[in-house]
Amino acid sequence: MGASDRKHVVIIGGGFGGLWAAKALRRARVRVTLLDRRNHHLFQPLLYQVATATLDPSDIAAPIRSILRNQHNLQVLLGEARSIDVARKAVTMQDDSELAYDYLVVATGATHSYFGKDHWARFAPGLKSLEDALEIRRRVLIAYEAAEAEPDPERRRPWLNFVIIGAGPTGVELAGALSEIARHSLRADFRRIDPADARVILVEGQDRVLPTFPPEQSARAHKQLERLGVEVRLKTRVTDIDAGGVALGDQRIEAGTVLWAAGVAASPLARTLGVPLDRAGRVQVQSSLAIPGRDDVFVIGDLAALEVDGKPVPGVSAAAMQEGEHVARTIKRAIEGRGDALHKFHYFNRGTFATIGRGAAVGDFLGRLQVSGFLAWLAWLGIHIFFLIGFRARLFVMFSWAYSYLSHRRGVRLITGTQLLPERRPALPEQPKEPAQPAPAEPAPPPN
Amino acid sequence: MGASDRKHVVIIGGGFGGLWAAKALRRARVRVTLLDRRNHHLFQPLLYQVATATLDPSDIAAPIRSILRNQHNLQVLLGEARSIDVARKAVTMQDDSELAYDYLVVATGATHSYFGKDHWARFAPGLKSLEDALEIRRRVLIAYEAAEAEPDPERRRPWLNFVIIGAGPTGVELAGALSEIARHSLRADFRRIDPADARVILVEGQDRVLPTFPPEQSARAHKQLERLGVEVRLKTRVTDIDAGGVALGDQRIEAGTVLWAAGVAASPLARTLGVPLDRAGRVQVQSSLAIPGRDDVFVIGDLAALEVDGKPVPGVSAAAMQEGEHVARTIKRAIEGRGDALHKFHYFNRGTFATIGRGAAVGDFLGRLQVSGFLAWLAWLGIHIFFLIGFRARLFVMFSWAYSYLSHRRGVRLITGTQLLPERRPALPEQPKEPAQPAPAEPAPPPN
Repeated sequence: MGASDRKHVVIIGGGFGGLWAAKALRRARVRVTLLDRRNHHLFQPLLYQVATATLDPSDIAAPIRSILRNQHNLQVLLGEARSIDVARKAVTMQDDSELAYDYLVVATGATHSYFGKDHWARFAPGLKSLEDALEIRRRVLIAYEAAEAEPDPERRRPWLNFVIIGAGPTGVELAGALSEIARHSLRADFRRIDPADARVILVEGQDRVLPTFPPEQSARAHKQLERLGVEVRLKTRVTDIDAGGVALGDQRIEAGTVLWAAGVAASPLARTLGVPLDRAGRVQVQSSLAIPGRDDVFVIGDLAALEVDGKPVPGVSAAAMQEGEHVARTIKRAIEGRGDALHKFHYFNRGTFATIGRGAAVGDFLGRLQVSGFLAWLAWLGIHIFFLIGFRARLFVMFSWAYSYLSHRRGVRLITGTQLLPERRPALPEQPKEPAQPAPAEPAPPPN
Repeated sequence: MGASDRKHVVIIGGGFGGLWAAKALRRARVRVTLLDRRNHHLFQPLLYQVATATLDPSDIAAPIRSILRNQHNLQVLLGEARSIDVARKAVTMQDDSELAYDYLVVATGATHSYFGKDHWARFAPGLKSLEDALEIRRRVLIAYEAAEAEPDPERRRPWLNFVIIGAGPTGVELAGALSEIARHSLRADFRRIDPADARVILVEGQDRVLPTFPPEQSARAHKQLERLGVEVRLKTRVTDIDAGGVALGDQRIEAGTVLWAAGVAASPLARTLGVPLDRAGRVQVQSSLAIPGRDDVFVIGDLAALEVDGKPVPGVSAAAMQEGEHVARTIKRAIEGRGDALHKFHYFNRGTFATIGRGAAVGDFLGRLQVSGFLAWLAWLGIHIFFLIGFRARLFVMFSWAYSYLSHRRGVRLITGTQLLPERRPALPEQPKEPAQPAPAEPAPPPN
């Protein structure tokens, strides 16, 4: 059977789901096209370390083409899928060209959601892409520069306030890292300000940090955050964000840097499939990960909404990888002509981890054995090094971490981009200062 | 004598000149302010390696604040000088604030010059900043992606043409590296195209490559470039650049990537000094590096035009560093009240090097002992590692080079920025193909 007779599998998205699906089809008698609008696979669990100046982009990103160079039944295509026509079995691309498929795997993931307040995006960037990470890094470093340059103490203060909205794993990791930066990395570098005066404020709508983790883990993480000097505000809802800071109900925090880690929304490509979506825009897939009514279109990763054994499959890389391998097996069964190709997906929870600054983390193994503190942090390091793609990345991340750990410095404190100097802050509003003890406000919509 | 009684030295620019002036003032009884519009010092000699996907930005850039953290008579200020008033002894900043000085060192360097054709900048980016390097990297990588995605061979071909304008050190280094990428780094990664089909065309107005080097070095570099498959076109003048390619007199090369390494112009800040400038906009300084008519304002580095012993001081980092140290000594003598503070600057030429791809370079030591080939390349590696700022950078650059050398891969093949997908190429013009043997055209204006 020649290559051209082979069935064509199109995978959209080179994240964990798409990449693992592609790899699992390595020996299958199919032609595979992996389509992504970025040329690189991104190791998203470490993206916050690019944002907080520990790692370089290339430490956590690798060209998809290079990862799959030896997989000869596969071609990589740089391009963006605009829509999917499941009846005609074709994907329409950004340049109106079409890509016909026999089997389709949609793994385009999620993006930030501002719960309908899209104008907040300007003031409070989220963390999904390398560009996002570099933008956050730029804002954080510029804030210290602006504070150093500002002679008026009244106007200087807000530059040293860092507000993070959302205390899921990303928010907790960002808060921990920002506190480290303030207390250690920048310590000796300024003349007018003391970076340790910075306030890192973590705002969460629900009643605990890491709401998707077991409650005991939340309690430990909360304690570790407070030890790092992070101000945690639970049951607090963000009501407005502007260039000067955030409003939390009737109180206001003037802040030079506001970061968004609160919500995600599914990739808009899902809407073109013509199947039911959940409230976050995710595709409500069948237990086999096929979309309702079809056995040739699969949705995996953060774009899929699925309950297994009565519990939602979490939006983590391990789940996406398992789903990718599952649909690859399904496709292999289908091209062998087996009538029972569709099997139910089972999620195997190997564990969940979140770091909280230098030398501290919380996590569990297999959803049972709970760990925290320094040992959990070491386990987190090991797991992340292990899963990093490529020898070079593993090596360089290890060196970067060793350097940061031993020197307390951040290796990648570069301000790059188009806006290199701080903008003038808007004049402070004439209103009472925020009270020392915030009143609890109504909870925000739950993040993801 | 308290700190506030001390004379205030303002240094504008944290490149090699400004940084070395600052360091040489470490023990002086002065207050120093180092002003830069970027937060980082850039090791410009290796910038082309960021552009060609071998090094990360943080490998060759370090926060100025961090480099000088232990120099307690100095503060670093992130900001941009707009103009200088030598009569009032004040620098006006981007936000109209003013910085008063007792002594001023202007070291703001140079930028690209398109010889009055500024609209070429869009089509042919130059290489001065980290953003420039990332933009060039993006264009080069996108070109291969676009070629792979283009089904029409006629339209595919130009994406694999890379034209570099200017065969000074930067142009030669870029050409060598781009040829390496085509012939080795990307070899196995594509399905439709063979990256080795790429053409790298180096265009130079003068009659030899590396025109500022001794003629024998030019000849050796030329031979090494041709061995790497680079097409060298001497005495060839660029007459137009557009989105589709370049015109060289009456011939035209359709090219997806055109890079500019031909000319530099002095920083526009020089114009506000009110002193004579040369044709490239550089300040014609006195033999002491002071500007005419003043003994408190000095210009160093690429912004200064000076002849020593009848030869112009070259625009290289070594010269800038020596000039920085010279003006620091002058300022120290002046604050000690010595009437003979101004001494003549002597340039000590330790050597000049240029690499030409993997394992090849040309250079000379002390302007006398000439070396080329693999040994020159090793010397070049050693010298650059030695001068790189910071332990982390040295270590990481060594690792990156070892990785690239041993694996033939490029570690940093990331397309980032706002334009992530190739634009459609303009339709090919209906005109005769370029002749196989180009006719020599009139020489371009000399670079620098």
